[in-house]
Amino acid sequence: MPTATPLPDVSDDSQPVAGGGLLDRRWFLRQGLGATAFAFVGQNALASEFERPAWMLKPGAPFSNYGQPSPFEKEAIRWVSANPALPGNGVSWTPLHTLAGTVTPSGLHFERHHNGVPQIDPRQHRLLVHGLVKNPIFLDMDKLTRYPMVSRFCFIECGGNSNTGWHQEPTQAAAGNLHGLVSNSEWTGVPLSIVLEEAGLQASARWLIAEGADAAAMDVGIPVEKALDDVILALYQNGEPIRPENGYPLRLLVPGFEGVTNVKWLRRLEATDQPAMARNETAKYTELQPDGKARQFTFIMEAKSLITHPSPGHRLQGTGLYQISGLAWSGRGKIKQVEVSADGGKSWAAAELQEPVLAKSFTRFRIPWRWNGGETVLISRAVDESGYVQPERAKLVAERGRNGYFHYNAQVAWAVSSDGSLKHVYA
Amino acid sequence: MPTATPLPDVSDDSQPVAGGGLLDRRWFLRQGLGATAFAFVGQNALASEFERPAWMLKPGAPFSNYGQPSPFEKEAIRWVSANPALPGNGVSWTPLHTLAGTVTPSGLHFERHHNGVPQIDPRQHRLLVHGLVKNPIFLDMDKLTRYPMVSRFCFIECGGNSNTGWHQEPTQAAAGNLHGLVSNSEWTGVPLSIVLEEAGLQASARWLIAEGADAAAMDVGIPVEKALDDVILALYQNGEPIRPENGYPLRLLVPGFEGVTNVKWLRRLEATDQPAMARNETAKYTELQPDGKARQFTFIMEAKSLITHPSPGHRLQGTGLYQISGLAWSGRGKIKQVEVSADGGKSWAAAELQEPVLAKSFTRFRIPWRWNGGETVLISRAVDESGYVQPERAKLVAERGRNGYFHYNAQVAWAVSSDGSLKHVYA
Repeated sequence: MPTATPLPDVSDDSQPVAGGGLLDRRWFLRQGLGATAFAFVGQNALASEFERPAWMLKPGAPFSNYGQPSPFEKEAIRWVSANPALPGNGVSWTPLHTLAGTVTPSGLHFERHHNGVPQIDPRQHRLLVHGLVKNPIFLDMDKLTRYPMVSRFCFIECGGNSNTGWHQEPTQAAAGNLHGLVSNSEWTGVPLSIVLEEAGLQASARWLIAEGADAAAMDVGIPVEKALDDVILALYQNGEPIRPENGYPLRLLVPGFEGVTNVKWLRRLEATDQPAMARNETAKYTELQPDGKARQFTFIMEAKSLITHPSPGHRLQGTGLYQISGLAWSGRGKIKQVEVSADGGKSWAAAELQEPVLAKSFTRFRIPWRWNGGETVLISRAVDESGYVQPERAKLVAERGRNGYFHYNAQVAWAVSSDGSLKHVYA
Repeated sequence: MPTATPLPDVSDDSQPVAGGGLLDRRWFLRQGLGATAFAFVGQNALASEFERPAWMLKPGAPFSNYGQPSPFEKEAIRWVSANPALPGNGVSWTPLHTLAGTVTPSGLHFERHHNGVPQIDPRQHRLLVHGLVKNPIFLDMDKLTRYPMVSRFCFIECGGNSNTGWHQEPTQAAAGNLHGLVSNSEWTGVPLSIVLEEAGLQASARWLIAEGADAAAMDVGIPVEKALDDVILALYQNGEPIRPENGYPLRLLVPGFEGVTNVKWLRRLEATDQPAMARNETAKYTELQPDGKARQFTFIMEAKSLITHPSPGHRLQGTGLYQISGLAWSGRGKIKQVEVSADGGKSWAAAELQEPVLAKSFTRFRIPWRWNGGETVLISRAVDESGYVQPERAKLVAERGRNGYFHYNAQVAWAVSSDGSLKHVYA
């Protein structure tokens, strides 16, 4: 959505459902767009306007073993934000403002590495399950592939996503560069519960410490209850073997939990009666609160939503009809509703949710909007099936203070200016 | 699934649900695998067996703007079968035997090109809607992006997929190289019905002729009823702009219809009162029947299924438990059931269907199987929500003869030999 003219708007009988020009979520499909002079051409002009372009006049490129994006799509890339002194430490962001639908292509799945991407030979990779188990297990990938598998669509979100929201002033950047440490894939692998049952977890086991085979030997703990619930030893991402930067050949998928628990390049699971208290669950991925105490083990990523279209960097080209579109997700289950405001939060209307709405997975929402050319503010808020409502920023900051760094999930507001540009504001 | 030992099998109380060792589809999750000596290691051996591999001893690779598969995954590529004299004419196949889940990664979506892949500048690309319409429309991609969008998961299958099935003798090849002219993606775009309503289709319009902007100017017709039903002007594939080889920047998505109607690089839609009778709906994509008449306009891809794991090229490594897994799909709607036989068709058992089961989209099926080491034949058959049952090959051949080339959807059988290898047979 770079720049564009608005949709034709000829239906005078459409009544707004909320302020700022929001229309009923089913308006487009019920009304169509109606007859209009928009973009029409006379029959006589057809021939001259539609000469064959250059690429029809010569044979095209041959077949390929593995396809790549169009070279014209230069903006649909991950924005890398790495430590200059240690280029394998940092993040890269999914360009949510250039994408549509709910699947994140694997090449654009966000990255968070602590010491770079190891190039692992799958024939040499092993998974050890040990500690408080009756039968330690040592599996090569070939054996693991024999186990029964399941598939599910699931988001993974870094606990540090959206963390500029804690700043005093709103950071100006594209939506994906502010909120794109979250991506959504179809993951396939072996239910961890099956392997744990085989290992014979001892009654005293309370935590599983997961360790990756990267040069940081990244480790973190997850509670045994979660491990026995819906955790997957994931081997495939969007149909094919997991990409190297997402944990090839094996990662832990911990649905709805913060990204750091979804340990990549998984090599070891140790059952213990105590948490590991590792760096990434003490110094990092915890939040210092106003009373001086830190929140810890805040695993679940609470409900969140984000308008991706239009968003900063896009530009509205005149008054008229637009479709507002965005993403919502919750670590607690399904999204129940997404409401959108086009008047800075004074009034709200329910957006259409694209089916299928799946638990702990991206949900795409859309609602028609007639822009009158004036300044206004667009906001979205998600409600999940647990009844949790994505909070206003003031409420989140009041509860947690501004010393935190992780788990920012407040409502996001984009101000529309009269020239059609958008900027990030705190509504 | 290259080679592997079977799963541990310790549950003597599991009763087969059909011949050849098929177990209840919920068996794995209900029983777990039980305690066994499989792959266990003594606690004392852990340290020596689990030294840090080489890739943990140095920093890994840095971040990337767009990720790629692991270099170790050399088999998860499209197999290209092009015309040596015209390298842009032919097909490339999705390697279904290396994939899992239901999404086909865009880089592995099958290709069928008539004169190569045009490199289209989206700023210069236009869509013309003309013919029997009140208001011809001429749209650039920027304007089209302003229209309301929808998303759906949908398979596209070439009408010529699986066509070696018509041969007298079963062709020996990997499953994807026999049946991989079918792929499944999340597509996002503008409902064609909205644009047609805006154009004002005349009452006499019966067909829409779609033309691509490739060097073949590939054209084909679809009935107006279908165009007004669920056809999409697709701009995005698996979240990102459509790949060049799949029609960048715009393709027609015609859910459930044979691939050739899903015109890529779409530049023109002409409403007519007659079919175009173009090459690809007369000389091609029709089937000569035993009575000398040709079937034509056989748009809907009927229900089909395929066991992808295990399949030819894989090798079972000894007796014991395996998970049989495969894909099913139907151009008429949802898959209702997939049955599997492990005794050459004498008995059948229902496989588990992975949720969500979506209309006109891949459905992954799985069932546990205990191989006793003997020779046997594995078959799957799909039933869709219309009640249509994927036919036996003998029935299909009796109905259509063997002069056909397109629309082969008979049951597929893999013979297991006592050494664990598999080959294609006509059961």
